[in-house]
Amino acid sequence: MKPTHIEHIGIAVESLEEAIPFYEKTFGLKCYSVEEVKDQKVKTAFFKVGQTKIELLESTAPDGPIGKFIEKKGQGVHHIAFAVNDLQHQLDELETKEVKLIDKTPRKGAEGLNIAFLHPKSTFGVLTELCEQPQQ
Amino acid sequence: MKPTHIEHIGIAVESLEEAIPFYEKTFGLKCYSVEEVKDQKVKTAFFKVGQTKIELLESTAPDGPIGKFIEKKGQGVHHIAFAVNDLQHQLDELETKEVKLIDKTPRKGAEGLNIAFLHPKSTFGVLTELCEQPQQ
Repeated sequence: MKPTHIEHIGIAVESLEEAIPFYEKTFGLKCYSVEEVKDQKVKTAFFKVGQTKIELLESTAPDGPIGKFIEKKGQGVHHIAFAVNDLQHQLDELETKEVKLIDKTPRKGAEGLNIAFLHPKSTFGVLTELCEQPQQ
Repeated sequence: MKPTHIEHIGIAVESLEEAIPFYEKTFGLKCYSVEEVKDQKVKTAFFKVGQTKIELLESTAPDGPIGKFIEKKGQGVHHIAFAVNDLQHQLDELETKEVKLIDKTPRKGAEGLNIAFLHPKSTFGVLTELCEQPQQ
């Protein structure tokens, strides 16, 4: 595997309504998209910083992954995502290296990307996502 | 403020000796530098992914900031760092916006950068660092 860049950093927040104006007014970043990802029970807001996006994540249900994360750990960095090519091949290769995968095959994430998560137990506590641009 | 890119992502790990080979063999990244930052009681290892560095942080003392972080939260993402220009000006401006600063003036960080931390209470739980390249 050789990631090309950090695709995004996912940050769990209690309220997009509070966090978006903070990122805009304090850090001078522009929120260019708000999107709901229903199967993840989240509403996301995206900002671009160089090659990388900041993805703010607000839970839409207490039993969703972000709701549970905030309940346990509070607001903060939830995951980091590497951009890769040929995602299925990377997942197959990681499995041969005994990395624990949450997703053995890619699924659709925000912004139409193909994504898969690796288990933080295999990645020194960092919930790690791999993303690839879908074929046109 | 307008950060140019994500300068680095700081990740607290228990052992560089274990984490460095993982990042190299599993993620295909190359550790190009290991450095001790004595006043922070850490040993750091750097990898480059596109514009951004991964900075693995191992505590050199249980009472250091990384030692305490791991004791409380376990291994994982410790901070994110934005690259900015004119760091002192950014800090002054953030103070007028009532952002709580850990460092009111820049200090020296790893790789000779001028750095300052913002308090996570002001930044939705994310320990945030600002970095600038020193003037030549």
